[in-house]
Amino acid sequence: MGGDHGPSVTIPAAISFLKKQDDAELVLVGVEEVLRAELKKHHGDKLPRLTIKHATEVVAMDDPIEVALRRKKDSSMRVAIELVKDGSANACVSAGNTGALMAVSRYVLKTMPGVDRPAICSIMPNQKNGPTYILDLGANVDCEPHHLHQFAIMGSVLCSAIEGIPRPTIGLLNVGTEDIKGNEVVKATGVLLRDDAARGKLNFYGNVEGNDIFKGTVDVVVCDGFVGNVMLKAIEGLSRFMKTTFKADIMSMVGAVFARKALKKLNPERYNGAGLLGLKGLVFKSHGGANAYSFEWAIKRAYEAAHNNVQEQLSALITELMPNSTGAAEAPMPVLEPVSTIERQAQ
Amino acid sequence: MGGDHGPSVTIPAAISFLKKQDDAELVLVGVEEVLRAELKKHHGDKLPRLTIKHATEVVAMDDPIEVALRRKKDSSMRVAIELVKDGSANACVSAGNTGALMAVSRYVLKTMPGVDRPAICSIMPNQKNGPTYILDLGANVDCEPHHLHQFAIMGSVLCSAIEGIPRPTIGLLNVGTEDIKGNEVVKATGVLLRDDAARGKLNFYGNVEGNDIFKGTVDVVVCDGFVGNVMLKAIEGLSRFMKTTFKADIMSMVGAVFARKALKKLNPERYNGAGLLGLKGLVFKSHGGANAYSFEWAIKRAYEAAHNNVQEQLSALITELMPNSTGAAEAPMPVLEPVSTIERQAQ
Repeated sequence: MGGDHGPSVTIPAAISFLKKQDDAELVLVGVEEVLRAELKKHHGDKLPRLTIKHATEVVAMDDPIEVALRRKKDSSMRVAIELVKDGSANACVSAGNTGALMAVSRYVLKTMPGVDRPAICSIMPNQKNGPTYILDLGANVDCEPHHLHQFAIMGSVLCSAIEGIPRPTIGLLNVGTEDIKGNEVVKATGVLLRDDAARGKLNFYGNVEGNDIFKGTVDVVVCDGFVGNVMLKAIEGLSRFMKTTFKADIMSMVGAVFARKALKKLNPERYNGAGLLGLKGLVFKSHGGANAYSFEWAIKRAYEAAHNNVQEQLSALITELMPNSTGAAEAPMPVLEPVSTIERQAQ
Repeated sequence: MGGDHGPSVTIPAAISFLKKQDDAELVLVGVEEVLRAELKKHHGDKLPRLTIKHATEVVAMDDPIEVALRRKKDSSMRVAIELVKDGSANACVSAGNTGALMAVSRYVLKTMPGVDRPAICSIMPNQKNGPTYILDLGANVDCEPHHLHQFAIMGSVLCSAIEGIPRPTIGLLNVGTEDIKGNEVVKATGVLLRDDAARGKLNFYGNVEGNDIFKGTVDVVVCDGFVGNVMLKAIEGLSRFMKTTFKADIMSMVGAVFARKALKKLNPERYNGAGLLGLKGLVFKSHGGANAYSFEWAIKRAYEAAHNNVQEQLSALITELMPNSTGAAEAPMPVLEPVSTIERQAQ
């Protein structure tokens, strides 16, 4: 029901996905009569492996988090997340209000042990033909160093699990590559990550800059949710601007036809579907403004994450790398274990 | 002498600029023999309106700010800024270390009355065929609400002076458009800007998101220097990535030839040359990695700012809009004048 366009986008995306992925089952969660009408409109009302779970309410894009959390207890968002919690679904996909999705997910699913705050992690294409993982993309707009530290660990784990890279390189997004650069939070995070690297716990590359995302300098880029969100939207905005520019004059249109392959590769709509990491269940967030093609990519990502048992690997590796004894969950600043203790635990 | 490439970039840029702009005079500041050798190499050693001012030292890209400020008192950067201070030059252009350039500029030139911290302001192309002004792009990585508030005022003034827009619209870069969105600093800044707007002092549009930069939603986008810097570099990185992708296969290369006009319009190298706003003198910053074509654009921007008396207009308008009596320079948080006092001053 969520996103800027609701079922007019999510239903055709669901139908198209199901037709391609013949071992997948979809549960559409929302106002049943609206969903049925939209399914019929797109000739999907008799598709197998497609069921409807009725939910009476909808979280609006501008609903305060409190409304989604406390008042709309039968919202499509909440019911979908509860399906993940009770094991009826392997993953939930939503194009709804990000803040509400994160809040309801945290409330219903709870966070994994050792994780303070779940983060939103998505991927970008890079010049090395591999994806660059980036987090956080908007879940946490005010971060302390230990939050960024946890994002680094979670991003590393997800990238390792999905890409099969044993020790993904991690970059800390900054205004320069030198250790002395950055704001206070980022400089303190650098200290934590260098400490991890020195102990062989994380493959911390060092500071990276905005352009390193597309260079593919590192596998995982870590930043706070404010920075990640505005940057992501700026990148999407530039991509759309370029498309518009191509359409602006006839010669460029001819060019665009020839350059279709290159443009397709850079299509930001393909990079939809961000994971909410650090929860006891898989939740994927689509951009609110996604079209059907783009929303289908979000469903695909959630399917692949569930299919590859990302959640189990993530849980196991987080438990290994982030023992509860770090005390980060309670303390406002990270309390590091003495090296000897950590080494003993790792054996 | 500065930037990643030094005189091998700045000298050909200077020669090319001088040949096109026949009422401009350039003073090259740096190690005289190095500059003379490079001039000769590019057949520019006998150009009129070109002089050399010898400086024995160079601020390295990785020099701590303290070194640039306290030890290298005869650096090319410092000597160039001093030429602006003593009136020998109308503007200074540097591709050097941003932190050092800002620190030395503040030390030598001092800030305008009413300004706590100068900011770096550059422009981006947008879908409405106009530029979007953005600040801060890296001068201030840790900002309080009253800093962002001052950036809004300075950006508005610069845009108004150069573009001839009487009341430029101002957007506060955020993770969503609703007033409730954002981190603590941005939410508090929104309160200050809405207050200005209510009093008719600034044309505050409200929150904008990253994609609004390219949509041209507002004339001026305000953010802190950390966010602005990583976003700017991400945008540049995406632009370079797209160029690389176009060169990757032959059909795309054909496409790129036809689409040349569109690509040229989006060439990030054209958007080089950011103004350091809020100083008692004009200083322009080129990207450290700029090539000669790009560095020439930075010289052009500095020339145009000087030619259009931006500095005088800026000074006058800042004095009008930011009276010393706001007390912002001393207080950690802005102390707003009662409405009645402000209105009396404005009459």
